[in-house]
Amino acid sequence: MSQSGGELGSEEMGSSYEVAGHAKDVSLEELRDRLAEFAQVRGWDQYHSPRNLLLALVGEVGELSEIFQWKGEVARGLPNWTCDEKEHLEEELSDVLLYLIQLADVCGLDLGQAALSKIVKNARKYPVTNQTPNSTN
Amino acid sequence: MSQSGGELGSEEMGSSYEVAGHAKDVSLEELRDRLAEFAQVRGWDQYHSPRNLLLALVGEVGELSEIFQWKGEVARGLPNWTCDEKEHLEEELSDVLLYLIQLADVCGLDLGQAALSKIVKNARKYPVTNQTPNSTN
Amino acid sequence: MSQSGGELGSEEMGSSYEVAGHAKDVSLEELRDRLAEFAQVRGWDQYHSPRNLLLALVGEVGELSEIFQWKGEVARGLPNWTCDEKEHLEEELSDVLLYLIQLADVCGLDLGQAALSKIVKNARKYPVTNQTPNSTN
Amino acid sequence: MSQSGGELGSEEMGSSYEVAGHAKDVSLEELRDRLAEFAQVRGWDQYHSPRNLLLALVGEVGELSEIFQWKGEVARGLPNWTCDEKEHLEEELSDVLLYLIQLADVCGLDLGQAALSKIVKNARKYPVTNQTPNSTN
Repeated sequence: MSQSGGELGSEEMGSSYEVAGHAKDVSLEELRDRLAEFAQVRGWDQYHSPRNLLLALVGEVGELSEIFQWKGEVARGLPNWTCDEKEHLEEELSDVLLYLIQLADVCGLDLGQAALSKIVKNARKYPVTNQTPNSTN
Repeated sequence: MSQSGGELGSEEMGSSYEVAGHAKDVSLEELRDRLAEFAQVRGWDQYHSPRNLLLALVGEVGELSEIFQWKGEVARGLPNWTCDEKEHLEEELSDVLLYLIQLADVCGLDLGQAALSKIVKNARKYPVTNQTPNSTN
Repeated sequence: MSQSGGELGSEEMGSSYEVAGHAKDVSLEELRDRLAEFAQVRGWDQYHSPRNLLLALVGEVGELSEIFQWKGEVARGLPNWTCDEKEHLEEELSDVLLYLIQLADVCGLDLGQAALSKIVKNARKYPVTNQTPNSTN
Repeated sequence: MSQSGGELGSEEMGSSYEVAGHAKDVSLEELRDRLAEFAQVRGWDQYHSPRNLLLALVGEVGELSEIFQWKGEVARGLPNWTCDEKEHLEEELSDVLLYLIQLADVCGLDLGQAALSKIVKNARKYPVTNQTPNSTN
């Protein structure tokens, strides 16, 4: 194994993602590559079979649901949530995303292109009409 | 409602995403913006409360799981899957992603930055060691 | 295979479960046994590995969630639901239950006793206090 | 509130469920009633809206999935699992069951009868044939 053990490499360069106060766009390909490197240097890719990753994804969806479980309806923008609660939510949303990206990757599928195609397909399936419900003009 | 009903606008420009045979990177921000427009022009954003979107996400995770449910262990790269099966899988992976992006959006959270931060946090939590299990060098 | 193919046997005797207008209690053991017979006579038990059943369960939880996904908050007793909607919900709740019972069964675990033990454990973990929130006596 | 606060009542009588070494059958109705009492005496039923319970169920399905997530395929009967692992699994299976029962209850549905009906419906949908796949006799 030729990895440079102990060095975190590009994983640590989180600060480069903000340039002059502007966060740059984050692509699915970049996340995929970083996750693949992350797993490879740790020898974790041996555990990353499709169904293992799928069950890990389900586990994270469970943790995401737990955040919302006793709250009743939640308003957009989470007006009454603390910073800690929002940060916790960001982490669980991220965990779902990161396993989803890895699942697509080990299946050999391009998640970004697939997502764009799905939006186009949905647009054709649900065409925009002039009339919306409760619209009178 | 002054939208140009019936025109699909930028949603349809799927072909622009491949330039000279190369697929360009797909960013979470781009998907978020397209999804927000998609919902807005259809008057669907009224249904996009956080918990509605979360349950829709869970529904899609269910459909994703159904693809894998009777298959026993599945090899990386899906060597024995048909094109139709792979396309179905791409659609379900996309559906999970699209609801996840919308959930983060209505919560006012930046999913891309959150994901990058989570990778950095994970890298600190699980440092790379020189020795991997079963490694002798 | 010596089964009496084509005959549904005890599975069909649904009517015996109501005696003189009273539904008798339904035990987890009875459901387990009927499900085991159901799978055995169809040759389906070969597919009933723990992780296959778990993913099937997740699939059904997804279908259950889809029923609730666009409804906003739902009142207890489902006051505004149609009979068809309630019947659909009963079916999805049942599907989750039936896979859960089968999952426990193929794992060799006694779900009924486990559930009773968990209630006792929870009762010890969360003792009842004299004061409840907003109680003044 | 007329509850006898501090007394655990019937919840604690777990030992009565085994008579002379034989575990008696556990019915869904019994579990439902014990759970309803459990929530009522703790003042928790105010949180038990259908969607709250559904999300709690999803959370427990996530915890159940986490048990299986890195294991690859798992053999029936869990031959290599420790007692602690099996006990953990029993608890998570139970948690899913207990929320499922409570969800059906607050929806005003009879889960036991629904489950029996679903088995009968499935039996009609998938009749037993003399021939099984790969059977030649």
